[in-house]
Amino acid sequence: MKNIILASASPRRRELLEKLRIPFEIRVSDVKEIITKTVPAEIVEELSLQKALAVAETEPDALVIGADTMVASDETVLGKPKDKEDAAAMLKSLQGKSHQVYTGVTLTWMGEKEREIRTFSEASQVFLYPMTEEEIQRYVDTGEPMDKAGGYAIQGLFAVYVKGIAGDYNNIVGLPVARLYQELKKNGIVILPANE
Amino acid sequence: MKNIILASASPRRRELLEKLRIPFEIRVSDVKEIITKTVPAEIVEELSLQKALAVAETEPDALVIGADTMVASDETVLGKPKDKEDAAAMLKSLQGKSHQVYTGVTLTWMGEKEREIRTFSEASQVFLYPMTEEEIQRYVDTGEPMDKAGGYAIQGLFAVYVKGIAGDYNNIVGLPVARLYQELKKNGIVILPANE
Repeated sequence: MKNIILASASPRRRELLEKLRIPFEIRVSDVKEIITKTVPAEIVEELSLQKALAVAETEPDALVIGADTMVASDETVLGKPKDKEDAAAMLKSLQGKSHQVYTGVTLTWMGEKEREIRTFSEASQVFLYPMTEEEIQRYVDTGEPMDKAGGYAIQGLFAVYVKGIAGDYNNIVGLPVARLYQELKKNGIVILPANE
Repeated sequence: MKNIILASASPRRRELLEKLRIPFEIRVSDVKEIITKTVPAEIVEELSLQKALAVAETEPDALVIGADTMVASDETVLGKPKDKEDAAAMLKSLQGKSHQVYTGVTLTWMGEKEREIRTFSEASQVFLYPMTEEEIQRYVDTGEPMDKAGGYAIQGLFAVYVKGIAGDYNNIVGLPVARLYQELKKNGIVILPANE
Protein backbone atom coordinates (compact mmCIF):
# COMPACT_ATOMS: atom_id res chain seq x y z
CA MET A 1 0.00 0.00 0.00
CA LYS A 2 1.36 3.40 -1.04
CA ASN A 3 1.55 6.41 1.24
CA ILE A 4 -1.42 8.63 0.57
CA ILE A 5 -0.96 12.41 0.59
CA LEU A 6 -3.78 14.93 0.46
CA ALA A 7 -2.47 18.08 -1.27
CA SER A 8 -5.01 20.39 0.36
CA ALA A 9 -5.16 22.56 3.46
CA SER A 10 -8.97 22.37 3.62
CA PRO A 11 -10.19 21.04 6.99
CA ARG A 12 -13.37 19.77 5.23
CA ARG A 13 -11.35 17.65 2.79
CA ARG A 14 -9.24 16.30 5.64
CA GLU A 15 -12.39 15.35 7.58
CA LEU A 16 -13.92 13.64 4.54
CA LEU A 17 -10.82 11.57 3.89
CA GLU A 18 -10.57 10.77 7.62
CA LYS A 19 -14.09 9.31 7.43
CA LEU A 20 -12.73 6.55 5.22
CA ARG A 21 -10.35 5.54 8.02
CA ILE A 22 -7.40 5.21 5.67
CA PRO A 23 -4.04 6.54 6.79
CA PHE A 24 -2.89 9.68 4.95
CA GLU A 25 -0.76 12.76 5.38
CA ILE A 26 -1.25 16.36 4.34
CA ARG A 27 1.29 18.33 2.26
CA VAL A 28 0.41 21.71 0.85
CA SER A 29 2.50 23.34 -1.86
CA ASP A 30 2.66 27.06 -2.54
CA VAL A 31 2.09 26.42 -6.24
CA LYS A 32 0.91 29.44 -8.19
CA GLU A 33 -2.57 28.57 -9.42
CA ILE A 34 -2.90 29.39 -13.11
CA ILE A 35 -6.34 29.38 -14.73
CA THR A 36 -6.39 28.96 -18.51
CA LYS A 37 -9.91 27.53 -18.83
CA THR A 38 -13.31 29.23 -18.73
CA VAL A 39 -15.74 26.37 -17.98
CA PRO A 40 -16.08 25.63 -14.20
CA ALA A 41 -15.50 21.86 -14.58
CA GLU A 42 -12.29 22.48 -16.52
CA ILE A 43 -11.08 25.19 -14.13
CA VAL A 44 -11.36 22.95 -11.04
CA GLU A 45 -9.72 20.09 -12.94
CA GLU A 46 -6.71 22.15 -13.96
CA LEU A 47 -6.29 23.60 -10.47
CA SER A 48 -6.50 20.13 -8.90
CA LEU A 49 -3.81 18.98 -11.34
CA GLN A 50 -1.48 21.87 -10.47
CA LYS A 51 -1.89 21.22 -6.73
CA ALA A 52 -1.33 17.46 -7.05
CA LEU A 53 1.72 17.69 -9.33
CA ALA A 54 3.41 20.32 -7.16
CA VAL A 55 3.27 17.96 -4.16
CA ALA A 56 4.11 14.86 -6.24
CA GLU A 57 7.42 16.50 -7.24
CA THR A 58 8.63 16.34 -3.67
CA GLU A 59 6.86 13.07 -2.79
CA PRO A 60 7.45 10.92 -5.89
CA ASP A 61 6.56 7.56 -4.29
CA ALA A 62 3.24 8.61 -2.76
CA LEU A 63 -0.28 8.58 -4.10
CA VAL A 64 -1.11 12.29 -4.17
CA ILE A 65 -4.65 13.71 -4.17
CA GLY A 66 -5.24 17.29 -5.37
CA ALA A 67 -8.67 18.96 -5.31
CA ASP A 68 -10.38 22.27 -6.00
CA THR A 69 -14.02 23.35 -5.50
CA MET A 70 -16.08 26.13 -7.10
CA VAL A 71 -19.67 27.30 -7.00
CA ALA A 72 -21.36 28.39 -10.25
CA SER A 73 -24.62 30.28 -10.48
CA ASP A 74 -26.13 32.01 -13.53
CA GLU A 75 -22.83 31.85 -15.46
CA THR A 76 -21.01 33.42 -12.48
CA VAL A 77 -18.26 31.56 -10.64
CA LEU A 78 -18.19 32.18 -6.89
CA GLY A 79 -15.06 31.71 -4.78
CA LYS A 80 -14.62 32.49 -1.08
CA PRO A 81 -16.22 35.77 0.08
CA LYS A 82 -13.87 38.71 0.71
CA ASP A 83 -15.82 40.00 3.70
CA LYS A 84 -19.25 39.83 5.39
CA GLU A 85 -20.87 42.11 2.82
CA ASP A 86 -19.55 39.97 -0.01
CA ALA A 87 -20.86 36.81 1.74
CA ALA A 88 -24.32 38.40 2.14
CA ALA A 89 -24.35 39.40 -1.54
CA MET A 90 -23.41 35.86 -2.60
CA LEU A 91 -26.16 34.31 -0.46
CA LYS A 92 -28.69 36.83 -1.76
CA SER A 93 -27.81 35.76 -5.31
CA LEU A 94 -28.05 32.02 -4.45
CA GLN A 95 -31.17 31.84 -2.23
CA GLY A 96 -34.50 30.57 -3.57
CA LYS A 97 -33.08 28.74 -6.58
CA SER A 98 -30.53 26.18 -7.71
CA HIS A 99 -26.82 26.41 -8.46
CA GLN A 100 -23.95 24.05 -9.24
CA VAL A 101 -20.92 22.97 -7.23
CA TYR A 102 -17.88 21.57 -9.05
CA THR A 103 -15.00 19.73 -7.47
CA GLY A 104 -12.01 18.76 -9.58
CA VAL A 105 -9.75 15.95 -8.39
CA THR A 106 -6.35 14.75 -9.57
CA LEU A 107 -4.90 11.43 -8.43
CA THR A 108 -1.28 10.78 -9.29
CA TRP A 109 1.11 7.95 -8.41
CA MET A 110 4.20 6.28 -9.83
CA GLY A 111 3.14 3.37 -12.04
CA GLU A 112 5.34 0.48 -13.15
CA LYS A 113 6.81 2.48 -16.02
CA GLU A 114 5.80 6.08 -15.63
CA ARG A 115 3.82 8.53 -13.51
CA GLU A 116 0.09 7.86 -13.67
CA ILE A 117 -2.28 10.86 -13.61
CA ARG A 118 -6.08 10.73 -13.41
CA THR A 119 -8.03 13.98 -13.41
CA PHE A 120 -11.81 14.20 -13.19
CA SER A 121 -14.54 16.46 -11.85
CA GLU A 122 -17.93 15.95 -10.30
CA ALA A 123 -20.85 18.37 -10.59
CA SER A 124 -23.63 18.54 -7.99
CA GLN A 125 -26.74 20.68 -8.09
CA VAL A 126 -27.99 22.42 -4.93
CA PHE A 127 -31.56 23.68 -4.47
CA LEU A 128 -32.03 26.40 -1.85
CA TYR A 129 -35.13 27.58 0.00
CA PRO A 130 -35.82 31.34 -0.14
CA MET A 131 -34.01 33.25 2.64
CA THR A 132 -35.11 36.50 4.26
CA GLU A 133 -32.68 39.39 4.74
CA GLU A 134 -32.68 38.59 8.46
CA GLU A 135 -31.82 34.94 7.84
CA ILE A 136 -28.95 35.92 5.54
CA GLN A 137 -27.63 38.44 8.07
CA ARG A 138 -27.91 36.01 10.99
CA TYR A 139 -26.13 33.33 8.98
CA VAL A 140 -23.34 35.69 7.91
CA ASP A 141 -22.93 36.76 11.56
CA THR A 142 -22.19 33.15 12.58
CA GLY A 143 -18.90 33.51 10.72
CA GLU A 144 -19.43 30.22 8.90
CA PRO A 145 -19.45 31.65 5.33
CA MET A 146 -16.05 33.29 5.44
CA ASP A 147 -13.72 30.54 4.21
CA LYS A 148 -16.21 28.67 2.00
CA ALA A 149 -16.70 28.87 -1.79
CA GLY A 150 -20.13 30.42 -2.40
CA GLY A 151 -20.33 31.67 1.18
CA TYR A 152 -21.97 28.66 2.81
CA ALA A 153 -21.26 25.28 4.43
CA ILE A 154 -23.88 22.67 3.49
CA GLN A 155 -22.66 20.47 6.36
CA GLY A 156 -22.99 23.30 8.87
CA LEU A 157 -25.64 25.78 10.03
CA PHE A 158 -26.64 26.41 6.41
CA ALA A 159 -28.32 22.96 6.29
CA VAL A 160 -31.75 24.43 7.11
CA TYR A 161 -31.76 26.39 3.83
CA VAL A 162 -30.91 23.46 1.55
CA LYS A 163 -34.05 21.98 0.00
CA GLY A 164 -32.17 19.19 -1.65
CA ILE A 165 -29.32 18.25 -3.94
CA ALA A 166 -28.77 16.18 -7.07
CA GLY A 167 -25.41 14.44 -7.11
CA ASP A 168 -22.77 13.60 -4.54
CA TYR A 169 -23.14 15.42 -1.21
CA ASN A 170 -19.46 15.07 -0.33
CA ASN A 171 -18.60 16.73 -3.63
CA ILE A 172 -20.39 19.83 -2.32
CA VAL A 173 -18.53 19.63 0.99
CA GLY A 174 -15.29 19.56 -1.02
CA LEU A 175 -14.16 16.05 -1.97
CA PRO A 176 -16.12 13.38 -3.91
CA VAL A 177 -14.76 10.47 -1.89
CA ALA A 178 -16.98 7.92 -3.67
CA ARG A 179 -15.72 8.84 -7.14
CA LEU A 180 -12.18 9.02 -5.77
CA TYR A 181 -12.45 5.50 -4.32
CA GLN A 182 -14.03 4.15 -7.51
CA GLU A 183 -11.37 5.74 -9.77
CA LEU A 184 -8.61 4.16 -7.68
CA LYS A 185 -10.41 0.81 -7.74
CA LYS A 186 -10.62 1.01 -11.57
CA ASN A 187 -6.85 1.39 -11.56
CA GLY A 188 -6.28 -1.60 -9.31
CA ILE A 189 -5.73 0.43 -6.14
CA VAL A 190 -8.30 -0.71 -3.58
CA ILE A 191 -8.37 1.28 -0.37
CA LEU A 192 -10.74 -0.60 1.89
CA PRO A 193 -11.58 1.06 5.19
CA ALA A 194 -10.04 -0.45 8.30
CA ASN A 195 -12.31 -2.38 10.62
CA GLU A 196 -13.43 -0.82 13.86
CA MET B 1 -39.14 30.37 22.83
CA LYS B 2 -40.61 26.98 23.70
CA ASN B 3 -38.58 24.07 25.03
CA ILE B 4 -37.73 21.76 22.16
CA ILE B 5 -37.83 18.00 22.73
CA LEU B 6 -36.57 15.40 20.29
CA ALA B 7 -38.62 12.24 20.77
CA SER B 8 -35.95 9.93 19.37
CA ALA B 9 -33.08 7.88 20.77
CA SER B 10 -31.17 7.97 17.46
CA PRO B 11 -27.67 9.41 17.89
CA ARG B 12 -27.77 10.54 14.22
CA ARG B 13 -30.92 12.61 14.79
CA ARG B 14 -29.40 14.12 17.90
CA GLU B 15 -26.25 15.06 15.96
CA LEU B 16 -28.29 16.62 13.14
CA LEU B 17 -30.34 18.74 15.51
CA GLU B 18 -27.17 19.69 17.42
CA LYS B 19 -25.76 21.06 14.16
CA LEU B 20 -28.40 23.77 14.24
CA ARG B 21 -27.06 24.97 17.59
CA ILE B 22 -30.52 25.26 19.11
CA PRO B 23 -31.06 24.04 22.66
CA PHE B 24 -33.14 20.86 22.95
CA GLU B 25 -33.68 17.85 25.15
CA ILE B 26 -34.27 14.19 24.39
CA ARG B 27 -37.23 12.20 25.74
CA VAL B 28 -38.00 8.74 24.46
CA SER B 29 -41.33 7.06 25.13
CA ASP B 30 -41.90 3.32 25.09
CA VAL B 31 -44.92 3.79 22.84
CA LYS B 32 -46.00 0.65 21.01
CA GLU B 33 -45.51 1.40 17.32
CA ILE B 34 -48.59 0.41 15.36
CA ILE B 35 -48.44 0.28 11.57
CA THR B 36 -51.79 0.52 9.76
CA LYS B 37 -50.48 1.86 6.43
CA THR B 38 -48.77 0.09 3.55
CA VAL B 39 -47.07 2.90 1.64
CA PRO B 40 -43.59 3.80 3.05
CA ALA B 41 -44.29 7.57 3.21
CA GLU B 42 -47.48 6.94 5.21
CA ILE B 43 -45.85 4.36 7.50
CA VAL B 44 -43.03 6.72 8.57
CA GLU B 45 -45.55 9.54 9.03
CA GLU B 46 -47.80 7.52 11.31
CA LEU B 47 -44.86 6.22 13.36
CA SER B 48 -43.48 9.75 13.76
CA LEU B 49 -46.92 10.86 14.97
CA GLN B 50 -47.14 8.07 17.55
CA LYS B 51 -43.65 8.86 18.88
CA ALA B 52 -44.30 12.61 19.08
CA LEU B 53 -47.72 12.36 20.73
CA ALA B 54 -46.53 9.88 23.34
CA VAL B 55 -43.87 12.34 24.51
CA ALA B 56 -46.18 15.38 24.16
CA GLU B 57 -48.56 13.78 26.70
CA THR B 58 -45.95 14.12 29.43
CA GLU B 59 -44.46 17.39 28.12
CA PRO B 60 -47.52 19.42 27.09
CA ASP B 61 -45.77 22.81 26.94
CA ALA B 62 -42.85 21.75 24.77
CA LEU B 63 -42.41 21.65 21.02
CA VAL B 64 -41.98 17.91 20.39
CA ILE B 65 -40.29 16.41 17.32
CA GLY B 66 -40.98 12.77 16.39
CA ALA B 67 -39.31 11.02 13.45
CA ASP B 68 -39.04 7.66 11.76
CA THR B 69 -36.89 6.50 8.81
CA MET B 70 -37.27 3.61 6.36
CA VAL B 71 -35.50 2.35 3.27
CA ALA B 72 -37.56 1.09 0.33
CA SER B 73 -36.20 -0.90 -2.59
CA ASP B 74 -38.15 -2.78 -5.27
CA GLU B 75 -41.40 -2.62 -3.25
CA THR B 76 -39.57 -4.03 -0.20
CA VAL B 77 -39.26 -2.00 3.00
CA LEU B 78 -35.96 -2.47 4.85
CA GLY B 79 -35.57 -1.84 8.57
CA LYS B 80 -32.49 -2.46 10.71
CA PRO B 81 -30.62 -5.71 9.96
CA LYS B 82 -31.09 -8.56 12.47
CA ASP B 83 -27.50 -9.77 12.17
CA LYS B 84 -24.43 -9.63 9.92
CA GLU B 85 -25.90 -12.05 7.39
CA ASP B 86 -29.06 -9.98 7.16
CA ALA B 87 -26.99 -6.82 6.67
CA ALA B 88 -24.97 -8.46 3.88
CA ALA B 89 -28.19 -9.62 2.17
CA MET B 90 -29.66 -6.09 2.36
CA LEU B 91 -26.53 -4.53 0.87
CA LYS B 92 -26.43 -7.16 -1.87
CA SER B 93 -30.01 -6.22 -2.80
CA LEU B 94 -29.24 -2.46 -2.77
CA GLN B 95 -25.81 -2.28 -4.50
CA GLY B 96 -25.48 -1.15 -8.11
CA LYS B 97 -28.85 0.59 -8.34
CA SER B 98 -31.11 3.17 -6.73
CA HIS B 99 -33.50 3.00 -3.76
CA GLN B 100 -35.58 5.41 -1.68
CA VAL B 101 -35.22 6.64 1.88
CA TYR B 102 -38.29 8.03 3.66
CA THR B 103 -38.27 10.01 6.87
CA GLY B 104 -41.55 10.96 8.51
CA VAL B 105 -41.62 13.88 10.94
CA THR B 106 -44.27 15.10 13.35
CA LEU B 107 -44.03 18.51 15.02
CA THR B 108 -46.48 19.20 17.82
CA TRP B 109 -46.88 22.11 20.22
CA MET B 110 -49.60 23.82 22.24
CA GLY B 111 -51.15 26.61 20.16
CA GLU B 112 -53.25 29.50 21.48
CA LYS B 113 -56.41 27.40 21.56
CA GLU B 114 -55.49 23.80 20.97
CA ARG B 115 -52.64 21.39 20.29
CA GLU B 116 -51.06 21.97 16.87
CA ILE B 117 -49.83 18.92 14.94
CA ARG B 118 -47.90 18.97 11.67
CA THR B 119 -46.92 15.67 10.06
CA PHE B 120 -44.96 15.36 6.82
CA SER B 121 -42.44 13.11 5.12
CA GLU B 122 -39.51 13.59 2.81
CA ALA B 123 -38.34 11.10 0.19
CA SER B 124 -34.75 10.96 -1.05
CA GLN B 125 -33.33 8.75 -3.76
CA VAL B 126 -29.93 7.10 -3.32
CA PHE B 127 -27.82 5.78 -6.22
CA LEU B 128 -25.22 3.15 -5.30
CA TYR B 129 -22.11 1.97 -7.15
CA PRO B 130 -21.82 -1.80 -7.66
CA MET B 131 -20.15 -3.54 -4.69
CA THR B 132 -18.11 -6.75 -4.78
CA GLU B 133 -18.78 -9.57 -2.29
CA GLU B 134 -15.50 -8.62 -0.60
CA GLU B 135 -16.53 -4.97 -0.27
CA ILE B 136 -19.88 -5.96 1.25
CA GLN B 137 -18.19 -8.35 3.68
CA ARG B 138 -15.54 -5.81 4.69
CA TYR B 139 -18.21 -3.16 5.23
CA VAL B 140 -20.39 -5.48 7.31
CA ASP B 141 -17.33 -6.41 9.39
CA THR B 142 -16.85 -2.75 10.37
CA GLY B 143 -20.04 -3.09 12.45
CA GLU B 144 -21.47 0.11 11.01
CA PRO B 145 -24.59 -1.46 9.37
CA MET B 146 -26.04 -3.01 12.51
CA ASP B 147 -28.28 -0.24 13.87
CA LYS B 148 -29.12 1.47 10.55
CA ALA B 149 -32.23 1.09 8.38
CA GLY B 150 -31.14 -0.56 5.11
CA GLY B 151 -27.85 -1.68 6.67
CA TYR B 152 -25.71 1.35 5.83
CA ALA B 153 -24.68 4.80 7.07
CA ILE B 154 -24.35 7.31 4.20
CA GLN B 155 -22.45 9.66 6.53
CA GLY B 156 -20.01 6.91 7.54
CA LEU B 157 -17.70 4.43 5.83
CA PHE B 158 -20.42 3.64 3.29
CA ALA B 159 -19.83 7.02 1.59
CA VAL B 160 -17.46 5.50 -1.00
CA TYR B 161 -20.30 3.40 -2.44
CA VAL B 162 -22.80 6.27 -2.86
CA LYS B 163 -22.73 7.60 -6.44
CA GLY B 164 -25.16 10.38 -5.63
CA ILE B 165 -28.54 11.28 -4.23
CA ALA B 166 -31.61 13.23 -5.27
CA GLY B 167 -33.26 15.07 -2.38
CA ASP B 168 -32.23 16.06 1.11
CA TYR B 169 -29.05 14.37 2.40
CA ASN B 170 -29.99 14.85 6.05
CA ASN B 171 -33.27 13.07 5.34
CA ILE B 172 -31.19 9.98 4.50
CA VAL B 173 -29.14 10.37 7.67
CA GLY B 174 -32.43 10.43 9.62
CA LEU B 175 -33.88 13.93 10.02
CA PRO B 176 -34.75 16.46 7.27
CA VAL B 177 -33.67 19.49 9.29
CA ALA B 178 -34.29 21.91 6.41
CA ARG B 179 -37.93 20.88 5.95
CA LEU B 180 -38.36 20.84 9.74
CA TYR B 181 -37.04 24.41 10.02
CA GLN B 182 -39.16 25.58 7.07
CA GLU B 183 -42.36 23.98 8.46
CA LEU B 184 -41.83 25.70 11.82
CA LYS B 185 -41.12 29.01 10.05
CA LYS B 186 -44.39 28.64 8.10
CA ASN B 187 -46.13 28.34 11.47
CA GLY B 188 -44.48 31.45 12.88
CA ILE B 189 -41.88 29.56 14.92
CA VAL B 190 -38.46 30.75 13.78
CA ILE B 191 -35.52 28.89 15.29
CA LEU B 192 -32.47 30.82 14.16
CA PRO B 193 -29.12 29.29 15.01
CA ALA B 194 -27.14 30.99 17.74
CA ASN B 195 -24.05 32.94 16.75
CA GLU B 196 -20.64 31.46 17.37
